[in-house]
Amino acid sequence: MSAASVPLRRALVVGAVMLLSPMGCASSAGVARADSEQPTSRDAPAPRPKWGLVIHGGAGVISRENLSPEREAEVRAALTQSLQAGHAVLAGGGSALDAVSAAVRILEDSPHFNAGKGAVFTHDGVNELDAAIMDGTTRKAGAVAGVRRVRNPLSLARLVMEQSPHVMMVGEGAEAFAKSRGVELVDPKYFYTEDRWQGLQRALEKERARQQPASSLPAGYDPVSGDHKFGTVGAVALDQKGALAAATSTGGMTNKRYGRVGDAPIIGAGTFADARCAVSATGHGEFFIRYAVAHDICARVEYQNVPLWQAADVVINDVLVKAGGEGGVIAMDRDGNVAMPFNSAGMYRGYVGEDGEPVVAIFREAEAAGAK
Amino acid sequence: MSAASVPLRRALVVGAVMLLSPMGCASSAGVARADSEQPTSRDAPAPRPKWGLVIHGGAGVISRENLSPEREAEVRAALTQSLQAGHAVLAGGGSALDAVSAAVRILEDSPHFNAGKGAVFTHDGVNELDAAIMDGTTRKAGAVAGVRRVRNPLSLARLVMEQSPHVMMVGEGAEAFAKSRGVELVDPKYFYTEDRWQGLQRALEKERARQQPASSLPAGYDPVSGDHKFGTVGAVALDQKGALAAATSTGGMTNKRYGRVGDAPIIGAGTFADARCAVSATGHGEFFIRYAVAHDICARVEYQNVPLWQAADVVINDVLVKAGGEGGVIAMDRDGNVAMPFNSAGMYRGYVGEDGEPVVAIFREAEAAGAK
Repeated sequence: MSAASVPLRRALVVGAVMLLSPMGCASSAGVARADSEQPTSRDAPAPRPKWGLVIHGGAGVISRENLSPEREAEVRAALTQSLQAGHAVLAGGGSALDAVSAAVRILEDSPHFNAGKGAVFTHDGVNELDAAIMDGTTRKAGAVAGVRRVRNPLSLARLVMEQSPHVMMVGEGAEAFAKSRGVELVDPKYFYTEDRWQGLQRALEKERARQQPASSLPAGYDPVSGDHKFGTVGAVALDQKGALAAATSTGGMTNKRYGRVGDAPIIGAGTFADARCAVSATGHGEFFIRYAVAHDICARVEYQNVPLWQAADVVINDVLVKAGGEGGVIAMDRDGNVAMPFNSAGMYRGYVGEDGEPVVAIFREAEAAGAK
Repeated sequence: MSAASVPLRRALVVGAVMLLSPMGCASSAGVARADSEQPTSRDAPAPRPKWGLVIHGGAGVISRENLSPEREAEVRAALTQSLQAGHAVLAGGGSALDAVSAAVRILEDSPHFNAGKGAVFTHDGVNELDAAIMDGTTRKAGAVAGVRRVRNPLSLARLVMEQSPHVMMVGEGAEAFAKSRGVELVDPKYFYTEDRWQGLQRALEKERARQQPASSLPAGYDPVSGDHKFGTVGAVALDQKGALAAATSTGGMTNKRYGRVGDAPIIGAGTFADARCAVSATGHGEFFIRYAVAHDICARVEYQNVPLWQAADVVINDVLVKAGGEGGVIAMDRDGNVAMPFNSAGMYRGYVGEDGEPVVAIFREAEAAGAK
């Protein structure tokens, strides 16, 4: 590991430690910062943005008890591969848009995350996928929701952005658009994993035990069992030209019904990027929509002129905690600063900077222990 | 007309006049304010919020040339009726949520607006309806998109908010939810109006003339002919208890394809309310999504501590104009201040305060002339 990646690694760890403090407290150190990431250059003393990529693979009840060492190793490998794919794009002078696309695609194709292959099942036993992408420089954005046969929903969201006058397409209409653009449609069975199917069975059983459908329960009730309430994937990147992008892809909530759409494909809620700030979220989507989380973080950066880490920390660890909304975000600003606060037990996450050294983290405690 | 409604009427007029200035200019007087609405009370000198209701029936190319006197009279009558319905709720001590629901329902049921009865047609000749509602006090929200058989989509959005754990439902799933809650589903023919059907035929003809489908055109291209690019309806209200709510309902864009969803059902884009600020938007939805217009206005009010009129004016007449996004918003804050800026030729709009005197406006010039 190069010296340059140390501060970020420490930051990931510090973040983990600080977030053990009471959740309602907006700790100023409770997020990752990559302030010292950039190698200094003798003949170019002018500061320039530190390019890099941050990813998440979902936040939720992730503990040693429900993550086997084998699975943890596979998750870490997938996160690392995703970071490497995004880094390769950025290192070659590619765009932030291409970097987040490459990074998310790896996670969509992995069965370990709730996006693409391995997505959770709806109440009716199908997979309905949502995704969104946004280009911070142009503010162009694309989103799809409720698609059932698109192998890589984020790629379709990008096509919506680049090849249509629209931002958002849903359901069969979105699939018709995919077909018209030659996108590979897969048999819905492609998304099946035994794990997720069993997750649905457990959720249905729980629901039957309660003798009432999830949809008749009050807002805020979460029909998803703890061990499956994570997995949404996302990426934010800053490229060598200083452009930001954000992307998010998800299968939503286990046992979701009635064409429910969460925050991932909602521009401003689960996904947002402007010239100064990019955010991708994961968590209990309804809360992220009501609090316009992704846009709110960027609005605080712009209008309150607070550092990114502070804006992200207040929204996740103060506003959302008070509201009862569980989850986290990854965020980057135009100076290459990184934040990845979460108020849940764990969040699959990682970062890679110019040095190309991927840094991956899952738990709080484990990282803190490892830092000693 | 009572004296109390004069300042608002003048404000509507002033707004109209000022908005004639170059669109890129963020005029500080270019919006309506209702600062003097509240009758003073001798034995209760403490200031209290001025309750009231603001509505819109869409923004766009509205001119004397394409609006016959007969139609104008009908539009004004419907807007007035909507204001009266909302006022009755508020005057009786009802909630802002109930007031915006009542006001929007009248406009959904009127064939003159692009929502409910009278919605525009999709490329495939059907009506796909979107709506959202948000309670500023609790931040609870409900939204539906792409429903085809729900007579009053806003009522369904409210049911999503109140009787499900979710915020957003789309397509057939949303209709299945409607059915499960006993919502009246209508024959899709209910939404038909000859005007809108002819609007689709003109759009299709134009598209054929161009020899390319609208969806292959670059982002920003607007497939809707000028005279049909308006009609989304919405309302914001402040009730006697000081609670704010926002609601929006629409048929979207004529000739839309592929399950396109605009800004109306996107919380933070076309619809948003918090404890301090409520916004409903109308216009070229893709821009309102990319700029998270409704949330951005409220974020400026909160984080920049600027007056509502200024926040709304900057977003509509500066940010959106520079981006090329046509449309407008209605907004209220917790002190009862009102803003209704638009950067298009006209916007169907209206306001009613405690005195119950509805004030309705459509054009810029006409209002200005009438004020002399």
